[in-house]
Amino acid sequence: MVNKRPVREVVVLGAGLYRYGIYPETPFTTMGMQAVNNALKDAGVPWADIEVGYCSNANLGNAAGHILGWHIGANGMTMTNIENASASGNAGFREAYLAIASGAHDVALAVGVDKLRAYRQTKPDETQKETVKAPANTSMMRGFAERAHRHMKEYGTTVEQMAMVSVKNHLNGSLNPYAHYQKAVTMEEVFNARMVADPLTVLHCCPWDEGAAAVILCAKEVATKYTSKPSPRVLASVCTGNASVDPLVEMTQITATKAYEMAGVGPKDLNLVEVHDAATIEEILYYEALGLCPMGEGGKLIESGATAINGRIPVNTSGGLISMGHPIGPTGVGQIAELLWQMRGEAGKRQITKSPRIGLAHMVGAGGVCFIHILGL
Amino acid sequence: MVNKRPVREVVVLGAGLYRYGIYPETPFTTMGMQAVNNALKDAGVPWADIEVGYCSNANLGNAAGHILGWHIGANGMTMTNIENASASGNAGFREAYLAIASGAHDVALAVGVDKLRAYRQTKPDETQKETVKAPANTSMMRGFAERAHRHMKEYGTTVEQMAMVSVKNHLNGSLNPYAHYQKAVTMEEVFNARMVADPLTVLHCCPWDEGAAAVILCAKEVATKYTSKPSPRVLASVCTGNASVDPLVEMTQITATKAYEMAGVGPKDLNLVEVHDAATIEEILYYEALGLCPMGEGGKLIESGATAINGRIPVNTSGGLISMGHPIGPTGVGQIAELLWQMRGEAGKRQITKSPRIGLAHMVGAGGVCFIHILGL
Repeated sequence: MVNKRPVREVVVLGAGLYRYGIYPETPFTTMGMQAVNNALKDAGVPWADIEVGYCSNANLGNAAGHILGWHIGANGMTMTNIENASASGNAGFREAYLAIASGAHDVALAVGVDKLRAYRQTKPDETQKETVKAPANTSMMRGFAERAHRHMKEYGTTVEQMAMVSVKNHLNGSLNPYAHYQKAVTMEEVFNARMVADPLTVLHCCPWDEGAAAVILCAKEVATKYTSKPSPRVLASVCTGNASVDPLVEMTQITATKAYEMAGVGPKDLNLVEVHDAATIEEILYYEALGLCPMGEGGKLIESGATAINGRIPVNTSGGLISMGHPIGPTGVGQIAELLWQMRGEAGKRQITKSPRIGLAHMVGAGGVCFIHILGL
Repeated sequence: MVNKRPVREVVVLGAGLYRYGIYPETPFTTMGMQAVNNALKDAGVPWADIEVGYCSNANLGNAAGHILGWHIGANGMTMTNIENASASGNAGFREAYLAIASGAHDVALAVGVDKLRAYRQTKPDETQKETVKAPANTSMMRGFAERAHRHMKEYGTTVEQMAMVSVKNHLNGSLNPYAHYQKAVTMEEVFNARMVADPLTVLHCCPWDEGAAAVILCAKEVATKYTSKPSPRVLASVCTGNASVDPLVEMTQITATKAYEMAGVGPKDLNLVEVHDAATIEEILYYEALGLCPMGEGGKLIESGATAINGRIPVNTSGGLISMGHPIGPTGVGQIAELLWQMRGEAGKRQITKSPRIGLAHMVGAGGVCFIHILGL
């Protein structure tokens, strides 16, 4: 049986971020160091106690993890580089989790850090303007636009409903000091923005990003050595891929089924969800695929307000890929940071009033992979 | 405590290789597929049973693992890319091991596959000539040459003794159908070869390589489902790095100490060792650092014949990096293949007469990392 629950309990101890954005002058080591040092501080863990590290990145090339490790300081641990497309950060988090769950290590680091390989479509300085959003990959967005049309035809989903995802996520991002875009947008602005792939304007799409995110994990049995704060356990860690199924909905359904079984929870038990919203339509697809609502009713779910910060099931309180950003290597690690901080009641202006106890992070990646982690207090 | 022994036993079930060499016309998928399919056959494991995969590579770029997986066929598993410099293959093997040791998975794949990023220093066709060896990285070899001079001065080690490592490893490679160089060399040929970095001629150095290697691991408790052959257990899996120590000798000593403790064995218990011999002097340094002989007596150890195939402690029966080759992603995985086949008495012409029961694979990597795995029947 695949993706079983390991015997050893693993908890998330702390997290740190470097604000997502575009930083032509900033070395990846500067971003990575800040994220790691913030995570160590948040976790109460000295760098010397990190036994093994995973550095998720898609664009930095060989040995990025080593270089980052050296910049932080000698501590005797090995940093292995991890890449799994958009899910690189989720994959690195999973390896750190397995390293502890196996009993091989007590304390591990998952850090994601990335730089753009090139500044595509817009110049860097343009993308820094809050109102001129760095557009995402146009050819990828054409695929999402087709999915949008199909969903509209099959289920009567509307462009307005998709735009509501953008409005919600930009509002959430405006409350997140680590988000690339920290400006709420109106429905009108979403509709009037530059068209990327009909019906998706640029405000339906995630930007290109750089940045860093780090989380510290440890065996549950040693957590009290470091912190008196509540530390969520990893209830499920599941990855699937390489299957002849729809890489978005069906792959997510397969992965979610396994993850719920492993965690011993169902979609109704979730208090918080972060999903791969490279485009607004995706968030609607994953509402359904994750079982947050029946198939075809994702449009109605966003419209009902259920996925807003204090709705029945808040989704992408961080701002998601659309507003917080999608720097690839860090993205999945940043999702875990959001779950942690929300669960600890430390999410600042975007804090869910009733602190969540069970949260889910979801990511798909090119090549047809899906990672789901469920954390629970 | 770092690098502890996990509770769940993991065994190596099977291995497959694509001969190391330089193949300008061969896609990485062709090499990777052959290695994986050979490993599946060797292990008696159907592709559908592989639950998770790790694709070690340093030069292929994003999503190589996915692409390889798709070429083999849909099976619902995720392939994560792993990079850790020269130790990339060892790092991927370790992740596959942790995935099973944790209890999350029962059957995992570690595959290493790589292509040259560029044909440096020599043209591809030249490197195919057995007598004109593709030279290794000259600047790296300058560092090894300095180590050679230091060892000669401190311990009286001779260039002849280093040349004996080359002769031994080329002889071993000549018996290995997967080795890049399958031609024994004489002491005279080693001395008369083109000088790379005094005193190291090209026959003291590992070549650039391409190729693929794959191993299948599983939980000990399910091994009999697949094979009736003896399957070595992973007794130790240790990685260290990022320390202010000599990255060759001291790093290996630190790692070996932990590995021996984890495995519950000492250097005297080893029957077979594969080490990172990018240059002949390195093999001598690691004889000492691994405790196969006292410090400073590595030169005498090779001279005594102890590390030959039927010596007291055979080292690099595969031919090592020097003769089998060093394709980076596959290298560490290929070391595990050699340990497995020797332990099963399936190493053909290079088989150690008294099949070994305990073997060690060692690799260092740029950035100062060291991986050691110990397998035992």
